[in-house]
Amino acid sequence: MPVLEEIKKANESYAADFSSADLPAPPGRRFALVTCMDARLDPAKFLGLEEGDAHVIRNAGAVVTDDAIRSLAISHHLLGTQQALVIGHTGCGMLTFKDEELQERLDTDVEFHAFPDLEDSVRAGVRRIRDSSLLPESFEATGFVYDVKSGELREVA
Amino acid sequence: MPVLEEIKKANESYAADFSSADLPAPPGRRFALVTCMDARLDPAKFLGLEEGDAHVIRNAGAVVTDDAIRSLAISHHLLGTQQALVIGHTGCGMLTFKDEELQERLDTDVEFHAFPDLEDSVRAGVRRIRDSSLLPESFEATGFVYDVKSGELREVA
Repeated sequence: MPVLEEIKKANESYAADFSSADLPAPPGRRFALVTCMDARLDPAKFLGLEEGDAHVIRNAGAVVTDDAIRSLAISHHLLGTQQALVIGHTGCGMLTFKDEELQERLDTDVEFHAFPDLEDSVRAGVRRIRDSSLLPESFEATGFVYDVKSGELREVA
Repeated sequence: MPVLEEIKKANESYAADFSSADLPAPPGRRFALVTCMDARLDPAKFLGLEEGDAHVIRNAGAVVTDDAIRSLAISHHLLGTQQALVIGHTGCGMLTFKDEELQERLDTDVEFHAFPDLEDSVRAGVRRIRDSSLLPESFEATGFVYDVKSGELREVA
C-alpha cells in the first residue's frame, strides 16, 4: 500500500478513538525538547510523554540551530515552557559525513551541521540555549545522549 | 517530581522492554514528515508509525524553513527518503501573534514565521519542498492539516 493510503488508514483508527479534544495549547509539563529526526527515536515513548505534555522540536542531528532557538523562544515566551532537553543519539547520521562532501555533491554552500563528536554537539547545543539572548537566564537546559542499541538516556550536560 | 527525575524514571521502563536494537538508520518506509512542535501532536500515534519508519522534523508551526530543508536534504540524499508530508494543525500558536509583536517584545529582528492562514502556510511549505534546489524533482511533497479537536488529518496540498 502506498504511504499516503497507509497513513490515512492509520489516522482513521487514531481519530476513531480520539480522547484529547480538550487539551490546551501550553504544554502541561512546561518543557520542550530538541532531538534528532532519526526514525529510530520515538521521544514520546522513551521519555514517557502523553499528548499535551511537552513541545517536541526535531531536526537532522538535534542541532540547536537558529531555527531551534526560534522554536524555543516561541515555546517559552508564548506558551510558558521553562526548560529544554537536548537529546542527541548514538549512531547519528550526522557523524558519518562532512559538510564539505555534501556541499560539493549538491553544489551548495548550505551549512548542514554535520559533527564529528556526539557529546560535544549536545554540549554545544545546551550552551547555545543558555547563552541565547532570546531566552531568559532562568530557562534551563540539560543535555542527553540516547542509545539506539539499548533505549537508554544518559545525561551529558 | 521534577521533570528530569520523571523522564529518567520513564526512560528506565522503556529501556527495560527495549526491542528495537537492530533497526537500521535509513527510514524503513522511506518518508519524512515536517510537523509542528505542538505538545498535543503525537505524529507516531496519529500516523501509525513504529520506531524505524520515518524521519520526523518538528518546529514551531510546521514551517518549511531553511533548517527543515537542510534536514530533508540529509534525509533524502544520505538516508534515502523519497517523499515528505507537511502537517500543520488547527489551533496552532503561530496563528495567534504577529512577528512584529514578538520582535518588539524581545528586541530582535529574528523572523518567527508566524502566519495568518493555516492552509496557506502548509501549501507554501509543500511548494518550498517542490521548488528546492537541494531536492530532486522526483521527491514528492503532500500537505495536510491535523485537527486537534478530532485527531483527523485532511489533505490540503
